[in-house]
Amino acid sequence: MFEDADLSLDDFLCGRLALWQPKQGYRAATDPVLLAASVPARAGQSVLDLGCGAGAASLCLAWRVPGLEQMGLEIQPDYAELARRNALHNNMALKVVTGDLSAMPAELRRDFDHVIANPPYYHAAGSASPITGRDTALRVDLPLAEWVRVGAKRLAPGGWLTMIALPENLPDLLAGAEKLGSISVLPLSAREGRAAKRMIFQARKGGKGALRLLAPFVLHQGPAHDGDRENYTPQANAVLRDGADLLSAFR
Amino acid sequence: MFEDADLSLDDFLCGRLALWQPKQGYRAATDPVLLAASVPARAGQSVLDLGCGAGAASLCLAWRVPGLEQMGLEIQPDYAELARRNALHNNMALKVVTGDLSAMPAELRRDFDHVIANPPYYHAAGSASPITGRDTALRVDLPLAEWVRVGAKRLAPGGWLTMIALPENLPDLLAGAEKLGSISVLPLSAREGRAAKRMIFQARKGGKGALRLLAPFVLHQGPAHDGDRENYTPQANAVLRDGADLLSAFR
Repeated sequence: MFEDADLSLDDFLCGRLALWQPKQGYRAATDPVLLAASVPARAGQSVLDLGCGAGAASLCLAWRVPGLEQMGLEIQPDYAELARRNALHNNMALKVVTGDLSAMPAELRRDFDHVIANPPYYHAAGSASPITGRDTALRVDLPLAEWVRVGAKRLAPGGWLTMIALPENLPDLLAGAEKLGSISVLPLSAREGRAAKRMIFQARKGGKGALRLLAPFVLHQGPAHDGDRENYTPQANAVLRDGADLLSAFR
Repeated sequence: MFEDADLSLDDFLCGRLALWQPKQGYRAATDPVLLAASVPARAGQSVLDLGCGAGAASLCLAWRVPGLEQMGLEIQPDYAELARRNALHNNMALKVVTGDLSAMPAELRRDFDHVIANPPYYHAAGSASPITGRDTALRVDLPLAEWVRVGAKRLAPGGWLTMIALPENLPDLLAGAEKLGSISVLPLSAREGRAAKRMIFQARKGGKGALRLLAPFVLHQGPAHDGDRENYTPQANAVLRDGADLLSAFR
């Protein structure tokens, strides 16, 4: 378990949420916020967060869409415990199960309206990990195709899988999407005109629509980093600071 | 064979090229021009155009990069003959072989520095073809994964495959790319902020780079079609009218 001295309490959504995170190791930044903003969930629906870590994505989603039934699966017991603590701290109902997605715990063997995941990056074959010695959240474990398959298995018919990943993960994600359709790929670009650094991958169980390659969501204004200022675009500010949804991008 | 009465002589690249095309059936428009603009070919290199049709992409490329050794494969004898006629008409050296890419003719069983293709669209599983009764150029034949595999087989080590296709073809293209790497996907959007209508898919034989999802190339200015005017963006004008290359997009 983490000691309190190893943790910091970090603001998300301009302080609408505060999350305990380890000072060392995987620390959530914008990725889980962007993921949560992309989930087409409505009050009353159920959501499973695969590899929920300290709970950032699920709790951002809980803030934007009250009235969800939310569960999380996390393989690392210390992160699972942190996610439970973060849910309590923010007075949100996230039930976290410690376990491995390749051996789904019995209480999660049910249907969900939504499955979300911010999986370990740097898995794709051919890309050497620039991060070594950091913890499981960024290491190569199960192939991402398996994350997609496991997510699809947990979805109710018509349910949505929403993931954030690297563009280089796309072949692997598509390889696991046999049971999914109506796929949308939303490129997330640091700046206008730049190649995407991340993408939102969204797909529907039993969906019949053709794959769509959406216009990029651009995070920063201007051609280069402007000193210490974040310099977000208005739409990025709306999502990252005010908790707006990103769903209009998918229409 | 086509009768002259069935053909029209159409300008490409603002009249820098003139191509005979059938009045009925598949007629090249912007797609082969965008494809040709994306090929990283240099004088002295060899290029194979799979399914070259009436030769639009190859001849646009010949205009932009003089000094290439260019060959085309076309399954329909009347289109192959038209491509030969178009090469002569524009005083360009394109050698066209009639044949099927699933049974590669002997004279094309060699290495090329580049393979290009503007394959039949509307192949991807799950997308009903909106076009029925039109000719082979738009019909479902060989899966696109096979186009990619056949193209990869014809490439010299380090050679580039460049294709134009629908975003919904992406799973199929990636499925055939086992021998390819350094894949770039360039979305082609009708207008800023819109989902891509087409994409350039580029990959290198033996490439080790991670897949990149590039910023879209936007064709039209403004939010909607402006009457009869094409209203191209400056960069689209440069490519479609002046024959500029699109390669800076891939850097």
